[in-house]
Amino acid sequence: MASVQVPHEIAEEAARLTIGILGGTGDQGRGLGRRLAMAGNRVILGSRDAGRAESAAATIGSPPQVTGAANEDAARAADLVIAAVPWDGHAQLLARLAGALEGKIVVDCVNPLGFDAHGAYPLPVPEGSAAQQAAMILGGSTVVGAFHHVSAVVLLDPEITELDLDVLVLGDDRPATDLVRALAERIPGVRGVYAGRLRNCGQVEALTANLVAVNRRYKAHAGVRITDL
Amino acid sequence: MASVQVPHEIAEEAARLTIGILGGTGDQGRGLGRRLAMAGNRVILGSRDAGRAESAAATIGSPPQVTGAANEDAARAADLVIAAVPWDGHAQLLARLAGALEGKIVVDCVNPLGFDAHGAYPLPVPEGSAAQQAAMILGGSTVVGAFHHVSAVVLLDPEITELDLDVLVLGDDRPATDLVRALAERIPGVRGVYAGRLRNCGQVEALTANLVAVNRRYKAHAGVRITDL
Repeated sequence: MASVQVPHEIAEEAARLTIGILGGTGDQGRGLGRRLAMAGNRVILGSRDAGRAESAAATIGSPPQVTGAANEDAARAADLVIAAVPWDGHAQLLARLAGALEGKIVVDCVNPLGFDAHGAYPLPVPEGSAAQQAAMILGGSTVVGAFHHVSAVVLLDPEITELDLDVLVLGDDRPATDLVRALAERIPGVRGVYAGRLRNCGQVEALTANLVAVNRRYKAHAGVRITDL
Repeated sequence: MASVQVPHEIAEEAARLTIGILGGTGDQGRGLGRRLAMAGNRVILGSRDAGRAESAAATIGSPPQVTGAANEDAARAADLVIAAVPWDGHAQLLARLAGALEGKIVVDCVNPLGFDAHGAYPLPVPEGSAAQQAAMILGGSTVVGAFHHVSAVVLLDPEITELDLDVLVLGDDRPATDLVRALAERIPGVRGVYAGRLRNCGQVEALTANLVAVNRRYKAHAGVRITDL
């Protein structure tokens, strides 16, 4: 079996990254920002409204380690950017920020889901997945899919010090997926597992609907672990 | 957290089932048949050709516990039928057997995947998933999706006595998904986890492409576990 371990120098590189989070005032963005800040990264929460971003930042840390800014400023100031925006408006926001995101790794964690009385279900995505849509829009960035299955409730729960799940990392660029694996592993308990190219990201995003069903049936905050690694 | 435990009486019911396996001469069908026979179930491997089915059956057990038959005879004689056929021809075979499968639970474990130099990728399925296609064709049967991520190599390996994975079970009929969960749990190490309605089966089938990528990168036989259950 090949090692699933991220090389030490990549882990150190991940530790030095300033992380921008688009849609950083939402629960997912705030939760990821909180855990990465706890791990020692600098975090800039982005929002349409800089004031709202600053208020959200204040709930998870203090400046200069955690700050808030308009999405575009967060994108420009960050080394690596996580897109944690609603699916509705995903394409438009990324198109507007394409210049600011140029040359950067953009981690897409968006799950295109619909909800009805029976629970969640995947929405059709013409590009195949949110991550592939991002890659088409952001020709100058390196898009990686990751953090799809991490419950915002768990991320924001002060009682939970360690998570029990693997973050599946998808992308076509090996150094970028390795760096994002290392970033995921800065959250205690998390293992970053390479899980395929971007063309295989659609089902990983959609699997969140299954986790919603599991949560509903078993009253849980389900995550995924890959076995035999 | 609600219990993930299958009730005792349903486990006993699963123990008494005679299992028919369509496409039972393939590695997946033979592997599932082998493990269910080891657990004590009667198993009938089905094939287009009854002689080939008998030969395949002889590799995993002996009559009367394990037998081979033409697909239609296997379907008629079984209490519960697993469809382990290639995706190519899936619809045609099920349409031909619809009468024999009437009134029965049909477990679809088919993964509609394509392969190229970059590995596996999901094929588009107009009905949404192989299981939904089966449900549309088999109006008189109760279709359940399960056993998508169980490696045939692992199932057939005589050195491996215990598996390390959850079988995700999908369907719209609670008694049927509970019975299939119980059936999965007859294989040592396996937990049967309800993972949503049939409309959420497409991404579970497609996720097999990600496990193929994991296996390739890490030289593993990857499975999935759901955490917090």
